Amino acid sequence: MITEKLRNLLLNIEYDGTNYKGWQSQRRKTLSLPTIQETLQKVLGKILQEDITLIGSGRTDSGVHALGQCANFKTSSDIQATKLEKALNALLPKDIRVKSVKQVNLDFHARFSAKSKVYRYLILNKGQNSAFNHRHVFYFSCPLNLTAMKEEAEVLLGRHNFSSFQASDKKLRDPVRTIKMISVNKREGLIKIDIEADGFLYNMVRIIAGTLIEAGRGKLPSGSVEKILRAENRKIAGPTAPSCGLYLIKVRY
Amino acid sequence: MITEKLRNLLLNIEYDGTNYKGWQSQRRKTLSLPTIQETLQKVLGKILQEDITLIGSGRTDSGVHALGQCANFKTSSDIQATKLEKALNALLPKDIRVKSVKQVNLDFHARFSAKSKVYRYLILNKGQNSAFNHRHVFYFSCPLNLTAMKEEAEVLLGRHNFSSFQASDKKLRDPVRTIKMISVNKREGLIKIDIEADGFLYNMVRIIAGTLIEAGRGKLPSGSVEKILRAENRKIAGPTAPSCGLYLIKVRY
Repeated sequence: MITEKLRNLLLNIEYDGTNYKGWQSQRRKTLSLPTIQETLQKVLGKILQEDITLIGSGRTDSGVHALGQCANFKTSSDIQATKLEKALNALLPKDIRVKSVKQVNLDFHARFSAKSKVYRYLILNKGQNSAFNHRHVFYFSCPLNLTAMKEEAEVLLGRHNFSSFQASDKKLRDPVRTIKMISVNKREGLIKIDIEADGFLYNMVRIIAGTLIEAGRGKLPSGSVEKILRAENRKIAGPTAPSCGLYLIKVRY
Repeated sequence: MITEKLRNLLLNIEYDGTNYKGWQSQRRKTLSLPTIQETLQKVLGKILQEDITLIGSGRTDSGVHALGQCANFKTSSDIQATKLEKALNALLPKDIRVKSVKQVNLDFHARFSAKSKVYRYLILNKGQNSAFNHRHVFYFSCPLNLTAMKEEAEVLLGRHNFSSFQASDKKLRDPVRTIKMISVNKREGLIKIDIEADGFLYNMVRIIAGTLIEAGRGKLPSGSVEKILRAENRKIAGPTAPSCGLYLIKVRY
């Protein structure tokens, strides 16, 4: 009888999502872009000589980036964490980097154990787009009123029904979430919207960003976000801002 | 008789050089990458309906970037500068941005009128490369001693024969140049080497960067750069650092 001693390893991952069809492996085999999960699983399989199933903290959509995505997997390999980190970064494409590998308890689950997540939305708001970062920001040339954006954003703090900020084709039974922190800052033409919540509805950050942009450019009068929130109706919120500006920054456990 | 009234227009250009075969148009028509100059000339020709010859402040090599390349051209068009800037940025690929267009005296020449140029070399010196900027820095994982790099760099200030820091296959008759400013700084793992000079020899900044890296990692003892400079011999300087870390920052007129 073979008793395998399993270990549970947690990866902290940074990726430029431009050339990927999001985090999650796709069932249909098409000629489309690879996903981050598939790419990581393939390289892990090569290193560990096992079939690996990665559990991500959550999906990120096509084109969305991460500075700190977390994912765990179980393995019977006794490879050292630092050695695995080096091997992964040597074999992975350059737009995916593993920032750390650490062993966690066997019952740790990257999705279910998460207490909160922090997302960031980046808007480049100046006269010219950047030749270097155009895939990593949403460029918006029309000047945005930062004070208006901050004021509207504050209303979202706390526990609310966020139905208005959920993709209309992906409705969840329970659209109540708690935003623990929301901030809007600007430095050298770059507007950062940071949001920490216990969970996010589908497209929630991108719809919030799109709505705050409408407020910032003067298309929505003061108090609009509060009205939109209470309406629980996706149709009256702003547009979904593009994926290239969105980053999963951190997962708190 | 037609009297054409010519105007001389100066472009300030930012580009990500990753996908270009340098600044200068190539004579041989191969299937290789386009150049920045060709790409700009083609778009200018389309907008102005004239054949345009752009005069750059100097070449940048394949893969080298610019935050402030300058180039002028003469045109009989009376298009407004701001209108031309908008039209250019609408038609150019996203990795080339025109930061400004302004009219200059007819005798202005982007190369001959230049008083000095500032180049920057970026070294990412930390445990992990960046998933986002790996095409825009030279990643060097081995820790570099910044104090040693600063001390060695200072020796290069002033008027010297820089033969040791010139590509051995491209020798100029007069290898004397004046470095007006040189600085080495580090912030959040990113080492910036900034150099202003009245002119640069072929590969000069990249060989200086490669040599300072050798000093920083302890492969060259203190005082080495002074010896290398006096030797006027390319063979004893460090390697040519890769093009992806190099930026033309500014041209002073």
